[in-house]
Amino acid sequence: MALAYDGAIQRLIDAFAKLPGIGPKGAQRIAFYLLSANDDEVRNLVEAITDVKEKVRFCDVCGNVCETSPCPVCSDPRRDQSMICVVEEPKDVMSIERTREYHGLYHVLGGAINPMANVGPADLNIPKLLERLQNPDIKEIILALDPNIEGEATTSYLSRLLSPLGIKVTRLASGLPVGSDLEYADEITLGRALAGRREA
Amino acid sequence: MALAYDGAIQRLIDAFAKLPGIGPKGAQRIAFYLLSANDDEVRNLVEAITDVKEKVRFCDVCGNVCETSPCPVCSDPRRDQSMICVVEEPKDVMSIERTREYHGLYHVLGGAINPMANVGPADLNIPKLLERLQNPDIKEIILALDPNIEGEATTSYLSRLLSPLGIKVTRLASGLPVGSDLEYADEITLGRALAGRREA
Repeated sequence: MALAYDGAIQRLIDAFAKLPGIGPKGAQRIAFYLLSANDDEVRNLVEAITDVKEKVRFCDVCGNVCETSPCPVCSDPRRDQSMICVVEEPKDVMSIERTREYHGLYHVLGGAINPMANVGPADLNIPKLLERLQNPDIKEIILALDPNIEGEATTSYLSRLLSPLGIKVTRLASGLPVGSDLEYADEITLGRALAGRREA
Repeated sequence: MALAYDGAIQRLIDAFAKLPGIGPKGAQRIAFYLLSANDDEVRNLVEAITDVKEKVRFCDVCGNVCETSPCPVCSDPRRDQSMICVVEEPKDVMSIERTREYHGLYHVLGGAINPMANVGPADLNIPKLLERLQNPDIKEIILALDPNIEGEATTSYLSRLLSPLGIKVTRLASGLPVGSDLEYADEITLGRALAGRREA
């Protein structure tokens, strides 16, 4: 016996181990779970995977994932049409929606500038953003990129690119996460929290 | 916009979040990964899942998962036909195979005695084991169950059940894991390591 499972099981383990965040042990656990799961649950999983590839597309306006283009946010007249929040990925839209603090539109770049991975401004969904900014209703752009090196580089780039257009360009506040401990904050975060202090 | 993704994506996230060891964030990550994965990889995953349900069955002899019954181990004449190693789950067979120390046969119980989960001896693949032991070639049974309460209970039960048959019944050694620190060993493990000491 080789040090691998018999045919189909090993292929399933290998297929799951390729997915992000699943190691060989986790893949094995999932494979045996599916093996003993009822047929409905397995069919449901398979249909969900095939459906997503068939039905999901990118919104022609904002670049978010959706089943209808324009997406539900872009086509919702109750959303504030004067603000666009620029994010890196579709999942960031969901993170901001969960705050229930923002009611404007979104623009999904599809990544951030990252010279190490050969991603430059030309690889991002920026031309469509500039096109949207021709609309005089737009009063503010919120740059909501990840607070890491790539996000900061993209924020600087977009801020320089957009400021001549005469539209207000803002970015998310940096500071201490709510519920955290001052003692454990890193110097850069604490420095930004000091610099961005406001009246209590 | 509701606080969920558009149709198909949310269904995929939900389907993955049901699998063991995958939380909502992990499921979201996998969903977006599959969304941008190439068609071949996705087709491969879907086929692997459907294949496993169609092709995989249990070996009529040892109870391990396999595509052909008897399984490759049971039907391999080069395996030592005088020993049967009793394990809880098919994945335990793989763990023992990886040691390359064992060349006998296996018997998969499909679990361990666990009164809290209503699993008694009658729910385990024990009758088939007794049937196999009618074969006079079998000289030794190795009980290789998990060293936890359920495994210990099953080991005691099987040891009492099998000892009258006049076959040698052994169990895995308990002791300090290789590469561990004596300082951090729990008392029970250290106690067993002492009791099971051997000449250096």
